Amino acid sequence: MKKLKALKCVFVLMSVVWLGGLTACADEGMWLYNDFPVRILKNRYGFEPTKELLEHLQKASVRFNSGGSGSFVSKNGLVITNHHVGADALQKFSDKDNDYYRNGFNARTNAQEKRCLDLELNVLISIEDVTDRVNTSVKPEMSAQEAFIARRAVMAQIEKESLEKTGLRSDVVTLYQGGLYHLYRFKKYTDVRLAFAPERQITFFGGDPDNFEYPRYCLDFCLFRIYENDKPAKIEHYLKWSRFGVGENELIFVSGHPGHTNRDFTVAELEYLRDVSFPYRLKWLKKTEVLLSVYSNENKEDARRAKDDLFGIVNSRKRLNGMYAGLLEPDFFTKKKTEEGKFRQAIAAKQDLKYASDAFGRIAEAQKSISENELRYQLLESWKGFYSELFYIARTLLRASDELAKPNAERLREFGDAGLESLEFQLFSEKPIYDDLEELKLADSLTWLVMNIGYSDPLVQKVLDGKSPQQRAIELVKGTKLKSVDFRRKLYDGGKAAVDTANDPMIALARIVDADARAVRLIMEIQDEIKQQAHADITKARFTIEGTSNYPDATFTLRLAFGRAKGYEENNQKIPYQTNLAGLYKRAKEHEYKPPFDLPERWIKRKNKLDLKTPMNFVTTVDITGGNSGSPVVNSKGEFVGIIFDGNIQSLVTDFSYSDEVARAVSVNSQAIIESLYKVYEAKKIADELLDRKSKK
Amino acid sequence: MKKLKALKCVFVLMSVVWLGGLTACADEGMWLYNDFPVRILKNRYGFEPTKELLEHLQKASVRFNSGGSGSFVSKNGLVITNHHVGADALQKFSDKDNDYYRNGFNARTNAQEKRCLDLELNVLISIEDVTDRVNTSVKPEMSAQEAFIARRAVMAQIEKESLEKTGLRSDVVTLYQGGLYHLYRFKKYTDVRLAFAPERQITFFGGDPDNFEYPRYCLDFCLFRIYENDKPAKIEHYLKWSRFGVGENELIFVSGHPGHTNRDFTVAELEYLRDVSFPYRLKWLKKTEVLLSVYSNENKEDARRAKDDLFGIVNSRKRLNGMYAGLLEPDFFTKKKTEEGKFRQAIAAKQDLKYASDAFGRIAEAQKSISENELRYQLLESWKGFYSELFYIARTLLRASDELAKPNAERLREFGDAGLESLEFQLFSEKPIYDDLEELKLADSLTWLVMNIGYSDPLVQKVLDGKSPQQRAIELVKGTKLKSVDFRRKLYDGGKAAVDTANDPMIALARIVDADARAVRLIMEIQDEIKQQAHADITKARFTIEGTSNYPDATFTLRLAFGRAKGYEENNQKIPYQTNLAGLYKRAKEHEYKPPFDLPERWIKRKNKLDLKTPMNFVTTVDITGGNSGSPVVNSKGEFVGIIFDGNIQSLVTDFSYSDEVARAVSVNSQAIIESLYKVYEAKKIADELLDRKSKK
Repeated sequence: MKKLKALKCVFVLMSVVWLGGLTACADEGMWLYNDFPVRILKNRYGFEPTKELLEHLQKASVRFNSGGSGSFVSKNGLVITNHHVGADALQKFSDKDNDYYRNGFNARTNAQEKRCLDLELNVLISIEDVTDRVNTSVKPEMSAQEAFIARRAVMAQIEKESLEKTGLRSDVVTLYQGGLYHLYRFKKYTDVRLAFAPERQITFFGGDPDNFEYPRYCLDFCLFRIYENDKPAKIEHYLKWSRFGVGENELIFVSGHPGHTNRDFTVAELEYLRDVSFPYRLKWLKKTEVLLSVYSNENKEDARRAKDDLFGIVNSRKRLNGMYAGLLEPDFFTKKKTEEGKFRQAIAAKQDLKYASDAFGRIAEAQKSISENELRYQLLESWKGFYSELFYIARTLLRASDELAKPNAERLREFGDAGLESLEFQLFSEKPIYDDLEELKLADSLTWLVMNIGYSDPLVQKVLDGKSPQQRAIELVKGTKLKSVDFRRKLYDGGKAAVDTANDPMIALARIVDADARAVRLIMEIQDEIKQQAHADITKARFTIEGTSNYPDATFTLRLAFGRAKGYEENNQKIPYQTNLAGLYKRAKEHEYKPPFDLPERWIKRKNKLDLKTPMNFVTTVDITGGNSGSPVVNSKGEFVGIIFDGNIQSLVTDFSYSDEVARAVSVNSQAIIESLYKVYEAKKIADELLDRKSKK
Repeated sequence: MKKLKALKCVFVLMSVVWLGGLTACADEGMWLYNDFPVRILKNRYGFEPTKELLEHLQKASVRFNSGGSGSFVSKNGLVITNHHVGADALQKFSDKDNDYYRNGFNARTNAQEKRCLDLELNVLISIEDVTDRVNTSVKPEMSAQEAFIARRAVMAQIEKESLEKTGLRSDVVTLYQGGLYHLYRFKKYTDVRLAFAPERQITFFGGDPDNFEYPRYCLDFCLFRIYENDKPAKIEHYLKWSRFGVGENELIFVSGHPGHTNRDFTVAELEYLRDVSFPYRLKWLKKTEVLLSVYSNENKEDARRAKDDLFGIVNSRKRLNGMYAGLLEPDFFTKKKTEEGKFRQAIAAKQDLKYASDAFGRIAEAQKSISENELRYQLLESWKGFYSELFYIARTLLRASDELAKPNAERLREFGDAGLESLEFQLFSEKPIYDDLEELKLADSLTWLVMNIGYSDPLVQKVLDGKSPQQRAIELVKGTKLKSVDFRRKLYDGGKAAVDTANDPMIALARIVDADARAVRLIMEIQDEIKQQAHADITKARFTIEGTSNYPDATFTLRLAFGRAKGYEENNQKIPYQTNLAGLYKRAKEHEYKPPFDLPERWIKRKNKLDLKTPMNFVTTVDITGGNSGSPVVNSKGEFVGIIFDGNIQSLVTDFSYSDEVARAVSVNSQAIIESLYKVYEAKKIADELLDRKSKK
């Protein structure tokens, strides 16, 4: 999943302001659409959203399965998201001679719109609470392993039934780390075409140095159009475009798909992040960043090939660096421990909460086993030792040949009937795969495997097969036939017999690893089951003690958040809530127009045509995280006033606890988009469509 | 120590050609000046160097204590070395407005020459074998710890006596991992001034992409002048400049200071490199590369400040990456094991070699303990957890206050009387220290300490003192007074009393770490003593069995190597042995003059003045490694024909075993230097001096 671009953590002193308790305060909250705190909002802002408004926002919101959020902005299927969310799709249909990612794209007619190779968009249609059914199928006398299998089975069953009944993509989502289970049904769109994208220079103006800074000057958006039956889809719920942007202190909503937060984590789980997970992941990210940076420095074409991978790696590294720094703030753990201690005392004091009395202990115990297995899990199951598209394809085919022969309920989660269509859509993608980049990534990750498991480990010896990591990677990438989508289809359709006799070296490699990978995955899944049961008890007890409405940690499902447009103070300086186009030109000039502060030629030529007072970016107190990239910012009339694209440097630690003191979400203003479409890009047709104007030919 | 720029290991398949045995073959050998294999050379090349020639080369060779090699090239004290060897010195007297490192420097008169802040040059005057004296002081009945202390004591004593007797810098050097001990006496120069440097663009043309590639087009040289009593030093042994460069297959010599090789390592020692040392160091290097790269991308001034650090880190990373890849070639260990097995059988077969029969086992045992302590050693003693100039200064002052109160023989090696002058020269250097860069490096390395020893470790808790790594780093850097050289002097001169009452936070930090750092260092030193004794036995047995002249692993002491100028084959293509100036312009044009293929303005303007057929770079089979950077390449008449600045990508694995199949040393041709001095830089005075011509005013 693509995350919000994360902390420019070269070096910034962060203070985590721990607000205590899990009760939401101020503008905190990534709220469930089926449990939206209307009363809190009314008390705080004197505004009460109607049911119709909530439904409208829900159905105008779009999830990008490649990672990120978006929204419908015309009745003819236009979807807006960030350029950096669309990047993956743009990259895939670009090549050496046509680099749409870098140079932008402007379809003058619908016929010119470019179809994406494997982009799937989801729109949330309904939510159903299935907690009871899930929990009933797990019997108290079951071992953790039995319970995990039973839970997986009932979830697969619910999803399958729902798919058969409704034809909609159906996912059972685990909330509150296991406190609740909701069935989410999505309408799925797979014919997605690019309508418009600006040049990368202007979408990521200021590059790394400005990333996670504010004030900012980025035009981080692009426009796709959804098609059905080869025609632009007719959309009922789309957001009207505001030509007036957002006023200071104005109430705004953000509807999107925050990916992952850790606010409900216990001390033991946070210690695991600090002591095991983050150190390991940061080391992997940094070594991979060096690898891809060096490769990208070779020449322009290599840079183009690696751009999306590298951007993702740099982003994650910054984000994790910042979060890790937050975990090392001594106050953070002190307060978390105090709070958890108090809560445990409260449980101990009530006879009827006895079921939760050892829940924290159970989690800590499970966490120990998770910590011990983390490294192997990361390397073998979570592809850190096999960082390669072709390996991923090989493993998927190998596992499909085993899993699809089993009843639905007994399969690995991702092979459940309900998700197969999406899985196949990815597996048979025609996206380009570059041998040199594959060899590079695979060789380096095999080397990482050796470094971390040890050269003499029997599995490592089998993986290397008597060769060096480099030789082995070349042999595998050159030797595999999986680059051919037809070959993949043949193996997938042919099932186990076809895969077993495929005689493909990459599939053979996946087979070497599979038993060990599955074994460590099972250990992790069992520990997760133990933790889920414990979290369910904690959540139940918390509702009993605190008796208050709340929201669960982010799960890359649709959430609604609110807040206001508001500046902040940094180093005793007031930072205004919004910037304008004049500021963009000023900043470029200050840096002598040198990359990454250079402007596209069009922007230099057409400067005089622009109203330089047009607002460009703005900040709000709204509670977001990675995955919210591309989320629409909406005013209380339900109009589109902007699009989320980043958080400031102080917002990163909100993964652990929200604060509205200085943490801010950063958005592109709707006015800047319109102004540039008309005056810089001469994209009148599309601008008119956004404004619901009739376009003259 | 600065190393030769190492392997562009983005991705290259390397084949280690293991030549077996320790007997030198082909052009192998980093020979001791007092044991030069005249007969081998005569047999191979029909050339017998005279004693006078050897003495002349020895005394014309210069060691850069900052890391690297050089040579005298005029009777008035001009020393030539690589620009990347001089970089450290250039960086130190540059500032925001005068960036000599980047823009070059040209002193029109001696008075304009710029004095370096802390550059020490050494010239080897004599070598004396002191093996017997060292070994006699270590009694067979001593424990390893007693033996280590006794050996350290006698070495300090020998050095002190020599210094008092001769006034020369005197170092006892351990050769053959402990097989021999030689006393090296150096004349020391500390008034070193920059006479000429080209722009960095042309010294490192092609940057990272071309680094470790060949053909190459770099003018990697600069010129210093040595002063004595404020006047240019009069030099008897300097190299005459050849205007004719080097012919194909011509015999050449390289006299320089190879830093470190691992050719005499046992299998157990190599496994330690593969399984413990290299993985750990590579992870540290890569995370530090990310840190400094991000910082450097902020702006030009940050890039300038971090340039030398970053260059060193990138260099080491490339080098280690390549060496590590070499260790993962399966053939390498197979052959090494076979060979070691045969040698052990040969020892077992001879009754009179019984003393060596368990030597390999003793090394393996010591290696276990070293592996267990490696991480703490790296973090606490070898500054990986405290990557900061100010910390280094604090520790030196703290330890000086303890050590200098002890008798010479009982001190830590670096505080021996014989080396004090050099230590003080560094300690009181006026080189600039930048708060922001110090804070950044220290915070990141404290974070690394936490990641690797663990947050809850008692020492970590003491180090952090209740703060986050960032807060702690800022507090330490802002709070210390050690940026003042006067303050350092006061503490150093004031001894223990002054240091104990200094009330300086950085010294307090050094004190917190010191007991643990010393403890782990002592463990390592004892294991090294065990290994040295075992290696001494192996070396003795090897001389008995193989009965042949040989050379010890590199030790950053002066060595003489020979070989020939010779191209090679790569991917079935012939690579000619030398390039020329025309090739430089061609390559720049191919890359549209974009960095790192841009040319300095002068080079574009004056292209027409140049003879484009002038040879620029060339390759030879000579046996070199990191530390040889800046070594003169000399023909059989003793004339300067070029200067070593790199090795090709295939040369990296020669740290483990030499090969002349495709491994090559890369040099700048003497002709290109002269041509550019006259025609590009209009530095007639200095060019005339190099050619021993009278310069007209």
